[in-house]
Amino acid sequence: MLLRMSTLFVRTLREDPADAEVASHKLLVRAGYIRRAAPGIYTWLPLGLRVLAKVEAVVREEMAAAGAQEVHFSALLPKEPYEATGRWTEYGPNIFRLKDRKGGDYLLAPTHEEMFTLLVKDLYSSYKDLPLTLFQIQTKYRDEARPRAGLIRGREFVMKDAYSFDVDDAGLEASYQAQRDAYRRIFDRLGLEYVIVAATSGAMGGSRSEEFLTPTAIGEDTFVRSPGGYAANVEAVTTVPPAAQPYDDAPAAHVEDTPGTPTIDSLVALADERFPERGYTAGDTLKNVVVALVQPSGERELLVVGLPGDREVDLKRLEAAVAPAEVEPAGDADFAAHPELVRGYIGPSVLGPNGPEGSVRYLLDPRVVDGTRWITGANEAGKHVFDLVAGRDFTSDGTVEAAEVRAGDAAPDGSGPLELARGIEIGHIFALGRKYAQALGLTVLDQNGKAQVVTMGSYGIGVTRVLAALAEANHDERGLAWPAHVAPAQVHLVATGKDDAVFDAADSLATQLVARGIEVLYDDRPKVSPGVKFADAELLGVPLVVVVGRGLVDGLVEVRPRVGGTAEQVPVAEVADRVAELVDALR
Amino acid sequence: MLLRMSTLFVRTLREDPADAEVASHKLLVRAGYIRRAAPGIYTWLPLGLRVLAKVEAVVREEMAAAGAQEVHFSALLPKEPYEATGRWTEYGPNIFRLKDRKGGDYLLAPTHEEMFTLLVKDLYSSYKDLPLTLFQIQTKYRDEARPRAGLIRGREFVMKDAYSFDVDDAGLEASYQAQRDAYRRIFDRLGLEYVIVAATSGAMGGSRSEEFLTPTAIGEDTFVRSPGGYAANVEAVTTVPPAAQPYDDAPAAHVEDTPGTPTIDSLVALADERFPERGYTAGDTLKNVVVALVQPSGERELLVVGLPGDREVDLKRLEAAVAPAEVEPAGDADFAAHPELVRGYIGPSVLGPNGPEGSVRYLLDPRVVDGTRWITGANEAGKHVFDLVAGRDFTSDGTVEAAEVRAGDAAPDGSGPLELARGIEIGHIFALGRKYAQALGLTVLDQNGKAQVVTMGSYGIGVTRVLAALAEANHDERGLAWPAHVAPAQVHLVATGKDDAVFDAADSLATQLVARGIEVLYDDRPKVSPGVKFADAELLGVPLVVVVGRGLVDGLVEVRPRVGGTAEQVPVAEVADRVAELVDALR
Repeated sequence: MLLRMSTLFVRTLREDPADAEVASHKLLVRAGYIRRAAPGIYTWLPLGLRVLAKVEAVVREEMAAAGAQEVHFSALLPKEPYEATGRWTEYGPNIFRLKDRKGGDYLLAPTHEEMFTLLVKDLYSSYKDLPLTLFQIQTKYRDEARPRAGLIRGREFVMKDAYSFDVDDAGLEASYQAQRDAYRRIFDRLGLEYVIVAATSGAMGGSRSEEFLTPTAIGEDTFVRSPGGYAANVEAVTTVPPAAQPYDDAPAAHVEDTPGTPTIDSLVALADERFPERGYTAGDTLKNVVVALVQPSGERELLVVGLPGDREVDLKRLEAAVAPAEVEPAGDADFAAHPELVRGYIGPSVLGPNGPEGSVRYLLDPRVVDGTRWITGANEAGKHVFDLVAGRDFTSDGTVEAAEVRAGDAAPDGSGPLELARGIEIGHIFALGRKYAQALGLTVLDQNGKAQVVTMGSYGIGVTRVLAALAEANHDERGLAWPAHVAPAQVHLVATGKDDAVFDAADSLATQLVARGIEVLYDDRPKVSPGVKFADAELLGVPLVVVVGRGLVDGLVEVRPRVGGTAEQVPVAEVADRVAELVDALR
Repeated sequence: MLLRMSTLFVRTLREDPADAEVASHKLLVRAGYIRRAAPGIYTWLPLGLRVLAKVEAVVREEMAAAGAQEVHFSALLPKEPYEATGRWTEYGPNIFRLKDRKGGDYLLAPTHEEMFTLLVKDLYSSYKDLPLTLFQIQTKYRDEARPRAGLIRGREFVMKDAYSFDVDDAGLEASYQAQRDAYRRIFDRLGLEYVIVAATSGAMGGSRSEEFLTPTAIGEDTFVRSPGGYAANVEAVTTVPPAAQPYDDAPAAHVEDTPGTPTIDSLVALADERFPERGYTAGDTLKNVVVALVQPSGERELLVVGLPGDREVDLKRLEAAVAPAEVEPAGDADFAAHPELVRGYIGPSVLGPNGPEGSVRYLLDPRVVDGTRWITGANEAGKHVFDLVAGRDFTSDGTVEAAEVRAGDAAPDGSGPLELARGIEIGHIFALGRKYAQALGLTVLDQNGKAQVVTMGSYGIGVTRVLAALAEANHDERGLAWPAHVAPAQVHLVATGKDDAVFDAADSLATQLVARGIEVLYDDRPKVSPGVKFADAELLGVPLVVVVGRGLVDGLVEVRPRVGGTAEQVPVAEVADRVAELVDALR
């Protein structure tokens, strides 16, 4: 395979695109791999498409090796199956919806659980047909509110989505593990570092899910790890609550005038001044945060989250906890409708079960266990209540995992203090269970002729996102630096200068390398300076750079890796062999 | 590659699907290659996807051999480029339109001329960058009014679309020929019979276009051929007009009472009775047909087509002539609005330039040349005018190719009488010229530094439709019969009976064949009768059927082609060699 730069449809750019913030986005555009077509929608140029095909091939091979069979669904699908599972509504504004000429409702599918379920229902009917795992590599659409970071969060993306079908839980576990193992092999082969973390199932539903994250500072996802091996997406971290405390000796709650304490800090300072023996900290205050939950149907409901004053509400954790609702800050209209909520002085007595019928729902951080004593709002401007004891003086509508997770927090499995890191989600596997099969009536007859609802798993890899993650993990300030197995070519052959002999020698070398089965990107452009050619080679990121130029008068060709290693001067007669040797070592 | 029927995701059906009319649709569904997901939208099952991948591979290889470079565009695209060329409006209800969450207008692209034009504009700027041909293999959407015939006219389909960019007409001609030659190689390799016919450019615009049709009785397109080699889509056939005739001796036009002549036949009978010396035929009458043209904008205009009474209006030819307008029959409201149009007695004197300002537009069949004499309506119930001479007594707003083409009509190039046949359009190539480049501002600097508008070609192959056409051309009453190079496997190995020795021998043969690089579909299902297995083999259509069964006790395996040829009994020890030999012969 020979690509000639003189005719290849590519233009490299020296400037970063104005809308690009992350390296993969900047470099993939600058190197002519992709071009923006619309917000979050990209056009694939020849070099980009070559890399994408290689990533897809690895995914496809490992899916086949795991026994998954490939099928393909349309992106354009009718509403009905998605309505049957409730997702037509739950996706809210996050999917593209349209009508056909007859007024029928359609969507551009963001994921295909429903269609796979119906397809298996259509073809299969017996436990003997199972287990079954199907997959597709397909273009998906989501109407992201804020498409960003190029391919990392686009509105169009290529996804490998697989679905397993089993007659019982043990079968699902085996299918889940087979996909999990396949994912490990895929990311290993791609040379992409990954962490497997416990995750929440979100809108997908299901009993268990894990994410594959590739660690990077620019990642959108925060995850935690403990020395003992616990790993979770921050949304999935559960708080280790302290033990309930006896409160027989606790003093009665007492309201105090607390003028000029609009913040937790100022409140703690006042409390410390007034009751110096207690040594109050922010963790002794109970902060009550008002938010609005917006259901996919548009229904809006206020919620108050009570949590220790030394922690903030983590909106992503709160949204994961209340999915599919979205969380918005409460506004003036909300407060106007609830005069009992005195801004800055909200306390439990007007909330949830503590207040009158119809009070705003009240959820507590798990740390607010029975017997804990708090300073909190007295529901009157300029007043707080002290020594308010949970379980004695107030209760709640339940607990919620909404407080931020901090480095040093305890892992829920007792495996030590957590550390936080960021990553890009490159894969997500779900033990869905029977939610979709139940909703859509997918049953098979078991050994006894009895209908059993099938149990399912769902397994996704963001193929275009993986490509971007590979670019993030493999670049330097000069450009991309692809691993050999996904690079658009293995060798970037550069002919420099104006000497015909140079171009003749480079032509001949290109032919020799191609004959050896090596993919060669050959910069055969006349009248382009060596500086430009070298800069392009570094930007494009092919792993091995071979330069036929000034050294040729001495019978030498330069061979150098794009990153690491050192340049070698190789005699012309030996260079094809040497390059083939180096390419083999890269594979 | 080994596919085992025991685990393969397929179910064959004995009954044709209720909505299927053509063989490809029936058999692809019955054999488990595709399943309907919505009207005109199909899901690809593993066997179908394998065939599709093989067709795509042939297309891709020949595109690369022709120097075309592969890129990939989104199906979801913003309105603006399509508005710049007018196609956003012209496509009318035939495309899927949608809005994103911010209210922006988008479409699911039915074809990508605009995006390719903008991409080249984005990257290229000099004549030195050209010629350039780009292509993609991509999923397209059209909101067909009447999706039908399975994959032949769907609402979702895979298309290879290529676009050439040249600085001058000679370049376009060379690019056009290169794609034309590539198409010939593609269809030759696929073993699909084709005819190249002259075509109209329709909504695409451009100076010249040709269609590749595969002849079949179930085709939607009618085309013509002459003994001298002329071939055209029926929409593109131009009429050979007779020479203008002198009319100095023609009698003056005279109105006759013609009661009871609602039809051409009754009119001719009356005329013949009244003027027996003339020997009138239907071809001496001038029929004036009223239709309504509906522009994509919704604007509606009446049109009268005048043509010899022995021919009908061919609506597809008329629509091609008036594209992008669509043609509807004129209704009662239209006639009510135009009282001068007396149904059954419409004549030229109230039409077009013959009538007063604002008369209904009037177009004539090219056969109505100056000097021809006609019987036609006198615009009064029960009256016709005789000896009305074209050019003397009436004129028109122009000519139109709207009359039906009939077998025996003269080819426009003088190459003899036409014969008519039907076919499926599998490819369409257009010399677009500068329409898109002009509308979107794609220019390059020429040798003199002067901006030149680029000239373009557009070249499409309906990849999924080609697959259906292959199924149409390769089947019998028992099922599909794929050519080897697109079949999902080359060998369908069937183990029959309950004898372990049979399954052991078949297992071993499968292994041997796979080791030889042969793709094997192995029916290893226990407890399935030989009859069912043989019927499935015939339905699925793999070219070589190998049966390990009763003959095994005599050391023999049966090898038979799916179609033609005869069954051979081959000794077990030789069967792998013999099958490999036959597979080689098929390739």
